[in-house]
Amino acid sequence: MAEQPTNGAGLRGQSAGSTALCTVGKSGSGLTYRGYDIHDLAEYARFEEVAHLLLKGKLPTQAELDAYIDKLKSLRGLPEPLKKALELIPADAHPMDVMRTGASVLGNLETEQSFDEQQEQSDRMLAAFPSIINYWYRYSHDGVRIDTETDDVSIGGHFLHLLHGEPASELHARVMNVSLILYAEHEFNASTFTARVCASTLSDIHSCVTGAIGSLRGPLHGGANEAAMDMIEDWQTPDEAERKILGMLERKEKIMGFGHAIYRESDPRNAIIKQWSKKLSEDVGDDRLYPVSERVEAVMWREKKLFCNADFFHASAYHFMGIPTKLFTPIFVCSRLTGWCAHVFEQRENNRIIRPNADYIGPEKQAWVPIEQRR
Amino acid sequence: MAEQPTNGAGLRGQSAGSTALCTVGKSGSGLTYRGYDIHDLAEYARFEEVAHLLLKGKLPTQAELDAYIDKLKSLRGLPEPLKKALELIPADAHPMDVMRTGASVLGNLETEQSFDEQQEQSDRMLAAFPSIINYWYRYSHDGVRIDTETDDVSIGGHFLHLLHGEPASELHARVMNVSLILYAEHEFNASTFTARVCASTLSDIHSCVTGAIGSLRGPLHGGANEAAMDMIEDWQTPDEAERKILGMLERKEKIMGFGHAIYRESDPRNAIIKQWSKKLSEDVGDDRLYPVSERVEAVMWREKKLFCNADFFHASAYHFMGIPTKLFTPIFVCSRLTGWCAHVFEQRENNRIIRPNADYIGPEKQAWVPIEQRR
Repeated sequence: MAEQPTNGAGLRGQSAGSTALCTVGKSGSGLTYRGYDIHDLAEYARFEEVAHLLLKGKLPTQAELDAYIDKLKSLRGLPEPLKKALELIPADAHPMDVMRTGASVLGNLETEQSFDEQQEQSDRMLAAFPSIINYWYRYSHDGVRIDTETDDVSIGGHFLHLLHGEPASELHARVMNVSLILYAEHEFNASTFTARVCASTLSDIHSCVTGAIGSLRGPLHGGANEAAMDMIEDWQTPDEAERKILGMLERKEKIMGFGHAIYRESDPRNAIIKQWSKKLSEDVGDDRLYPVSERVEAVMWREKKLFCNADFFHASAYHFMGIPTKLFTPIFVCSRLTGWCAHVFEQRENNRIIRPNADYIGPEKQAWVPIEQRR
Repeated sequence: MAEQPTNGAGLRGQSAGSTALCTVGKSGSGLTYRGYDIHDLAEYARFEEVAHLLLKGKLPTQAELDAYIDKLKSLRGLPEPLKKALELIPADAHPMDVMRTGASVLGNLETEQSFDEQQEQSDRMLAAFPSIINYWYRYSHDGVRIDTETDDVSIGGHFLHLLHGEPASELHARVMNVSLILYAEHEFNASTFTARVCASTLSDIHSCVTGAIGSLRGPLHGGANEAAMDMIEDWQTPDEAERKILGMLERKEKIMGFGHAIYRESDPRNAIIKQWSKKLSEDVGDDRLYPVSERVEAVMWREKKLFCNADFFHASAYHFMGIPTKLFTPIFVCSRLTGWCAHVFEQRENNRIIRPNADYIGPEKQAWVPIEQRR
């Protein structure tokens, strides 16, 4: 039917539905969750408050927040078959494959039987995902079976506690909190859109989240902070960084952590995580990685008018907290999970199966050729 | 930016890209794979030939087909950690959750390291998926650890052999072959589109397939043949079936296995699977399920001008071959896998990340409210 290709590649600029969750780049640089500005959320809120806002539709009162934190704390344990499944995955597996498998196995053991369970299932994943990835990481890398039930108040603190085997400092827990808020939601990005396509078949929420993890794994989507870290970690001085970046630009290599598909002037998340990366740098007495990162930012702006996106200063911030680079994207999962689930709820509420058309560019009708006549 | 909602719900009628793989409903009822009519493929081809057509771009010569069949036969064994993971999943799990988890675990153990491996990885999944679902099914339901390496020539025969513990009859292997061909590919349906969205982030092929399985699981997509079976299995006579259907229509209940989002006049796959269901019915001496199915078809056409889609006579056909209803959708996976992988290859070849817009319908910018002032 489509005689003229409609240039639908990437669906760029086409609307694929409605959302009340998020605006991206409305005034060129803004980001809001249910109308609240990302600057306010990152400055004043706990991640658990933001999760409440996204998943339950409103900012909680103090009593609601206390109850929600207690509930999430109670859901950190993993069922035995899930732990055994994680133990089967080798240390050299891709951590996002582990995350994807962990989510899928959880769906086998605690299957969403009806959409009435969607809130409960989302809370359970929110509490359990840091346990899943760290249980596997510590078992496969350190040979220990960790107890995933800790008394940490925050999800970010819980994550670092499991990873390092000791409670996180106040500063580290605070930075994790900010980071989880910044990554929580971003409208119809590819992983969220994956979750919505899956939800539109009325599939279960674990299928939606498992699919979204698979999409976030892609280097064009969730892997940018890891790629930024891989790039900057060997550079010893700002001057070396500048030489290397100029060389990469000359060879037209892609430099990860810069620019954005939607934002035109700046990524509002950058200034926020950058200030925390600076604090961490001072805290650990770093005189290399932060100055190197700042120089890269300056050179990219001077040479290409490209700004840092959310990912670039996340690389150094996570590194200063002792987080292995391969766990950067799984942290993104632990955060964006809130957005994914909120979008699944929204899709279910006013659903139509997402089934676009394609422009056919293949051969005209072919006569059948018996196998002995083929070549 | 979008002041006027663009009514993008479901992306119906919107192009999301190009494909050379398939036309659906081009003359109101047609279905072609790379230009070959579904009637010719179902009549003359092996499923392995169709997989070759979709995945490798052409119908194979006899020598190519022989080599491909031998190769697929050699890839039926499962790695030990995958078997152990399947043994951890309880008998009451949803078989599509098992399929999704099996695909994901395989991706941990045999990760696609570069896109150069995409053909090999697809062949491996094509050979291994019947082993995965039947290994879990037989272990969890019958308590046996089956050997998944059989000498059956066809994938359909292999599936039935593992399920029943003995080689399939020629008739049954033939019907499975036809069924796998009919379900292999269907343009930008929701599960295939899920795979393409995931592929557009340049993620690995196991993530794409795992996500697609999650979408196929949805009752609006892959579950229709199971739902059709659940509906008809208790009806004893055509007259009872007619009464029940009329009652369901009066109560405006949804009747699964009828109508289609794209086809307007008929589903070309129906006449094909219907004739095979009839042959199976005669073969087993059935005088109930096939006549009941025929009556349902007649009543739905008379009352609603709704035609059977591919799923309706699949229900009785699978049932006559002794396949438990809960394994119907996993068979769909073993077939559609070919289409998913072929679409992933296509997406990778000319990629742009799939990232649509959304119409914002949420609150305007909100001032921050300190927690003690909330209610």
